[in-house]
Amino acid sequence: MTAKIGIVTVSDRASAGVYEDISGPAIIDSLNDYLSSAWQAVTRVIADEQDLIEQTLRELVDQEKCALVVTTGGTGPAKRDVTPEATEAVCDRMMPGFGELMRTESLKYVPTAILSRQTAGLRGQSLIINLPGKPKAIRQCLDAVFPAVPYCLDLMDGPYLECNEDVIKPFRPKAK
Amino acid sequence: MTAKIGIVTVSDRASAGVYEDISGPAIIDSLNDYLSSAWQAVTRVIADEQDLIEQTLRELVDQEKCALVVTTGGTGPAKRDVTPEATEAVCDRMMPGFGELMRTESLKYVPTAILSRQTAGLRGQSLIINLPGKPKAIRQCLDAVFPAVPYCLDLMDGPYLECNEDVIKPFRPKAK
Amino acid sequence: MTAKIGIVTVSDRASAGVYEDISGPAIIDSLNDYLSSAWQAVTRVIADEQDLIEQTLRELVDQEKCALVVTTGGTGPAKRDVTPEATEAVCDRMMPGFGELMRTESLKYVPTAILSRQTAGLRGQSLIINLPGKPKAIRQCLDAVFPAVPYCLDLMDGPYLECNEDVIKPFRPKAK
Repeated sequence: MTAKIGIVTVSDRASAGVYEDISGPAIIDSLNDYLSSAWQAVTRVIADEQDLIEQTLRELVDQEKCALVVTTGGTGPAKRDVTPEATEAVCDRMMPGFGELMRTESLKYVPTAILSRQTAGLRGQSLIINLPGKPKAIRQCLDAVFPAVPYCLDLMDGPYLECNEDVIKPFRPKAK
Repeated sequence: MTAKIGIVTVSDRASAGVYEDISGPAIIDSLNDYLSSAWQAVTRVIADEQDLIEQTLRELVDQEKCALVVTTGGTGPAKRDVTPEATEAVCDRMMPGFGELMRTESLKYVPTAILSRQTAGLRGQSLIINLPGKPKAIRQCLDAVFPAVPYCLDLMDGPYLECNEDVIKPFRPKAK
Repeated sequence: MTAKIGIVTVSDRASAGVYEDISGPAIIDSLNDYLSSAWQAVTRVIADEQDLIEQTLRELVDQEKCALVVTTGGTGPAKRDVTPEATEAVCDRMMPGFGELMRTESLKYVPTAILSRQTAGLRGQSLIINLPGKPKAIRQCLDAVFPAVPYCLDLMDGPYLECNEDVIKPFRPKAK
């Protein structure tokens, strides 16, 4: 079963064509590095509008059946940054550990890591994770949390992700 | 004054008798190790139903007058895992530090610790804490957070817990 | 432009004159140590009443135009401790990283740090941060989070804070 993974770039400027989206492609590159099993990217580049972000997340989960959706951008304190609010609005249950670990990880590099409001949550049988906006920070955060993602999808009866274990080591407890 | 402590095992299978509840007894063992003052366990084994969990937590706090209620199970991302949602629904005020520290502690052992959605909160003058489902993880988490529990109950005018200080060191600041 | 910073001491006893407010002045001392650019304190000493705290926070942000508001007190588990609830009620968006880092920092000193329910959030273009009640803990927490505050205000088009870099090093990423 090919896993479908949604990748949503949330950026007024990238969506308006003011500059090129480099964050979405950075996520695709990382996932290609990580995953040895088949997967398919479903990408979107949208403006920092809460309604639009919610609608896009619902579409990727409910229609496109993405088992995993990652966002990039819109998690800071600027007025237009509303990705966490949109994420919380569409999720049934929240996963606070992702945001905590990503901030702890980013704090190793910059003290402004605490300004990131990124979170994660579950909508139906899908996991939605907010990532930062910058490619370097995206990779740092993904490296930290991705080892837990395959088992999370297992627990939600999602696709079985296999990884390039020299790049990332997914952890699956022996017995539930 | 004998402290009453509620212990709620949340598990479809244990409550249906498919297997024996080992998590509730593991909590009782840990509390017996920790506490030198008198305490009484009030135990429940229930299914992963949000309404039922809420009703049980309310009963243990409001009728049974448990100063502390700990739950085990139902904090992961599986569809039936709704213990944190039930906990939040019955609490007046949340205590995010417990979940943060338990996840940080568990991360020393397994990267999937971030999948645990455990939280804690206050209902009236009682403290409710979600623990993991597995006995080993229960003890790791309790060892991390229990040093703060006696003072928490003090601040809520609850029973004065005394501990076996060679096992666990409760911390009570000298002056408020 | 002189930055206005609101400082709210939340304490039944200090507001009733039972004892002197030492926490508000401790915050002023720390900010004087940190800031080399002009700033003006707007201080309030109020009781632990949720409505009153909310009203005071709204006044300091909406009428007084404080770019930053810090509170002290009312973040524990005691019955009258409702500062985090008041903060969340007046904020549009929450900043979970501040509370996480302050608790992690305080845990280096006392295991009861997890009892602190402090949070932070944004109301319009202002940042509101809950600090602990005791002067020593206030300084420990401010030292930990303040390096991120100037850039946070930059991102919200607030006043440009300059710091005494031998005391505290604000971090501003080179490029957004």
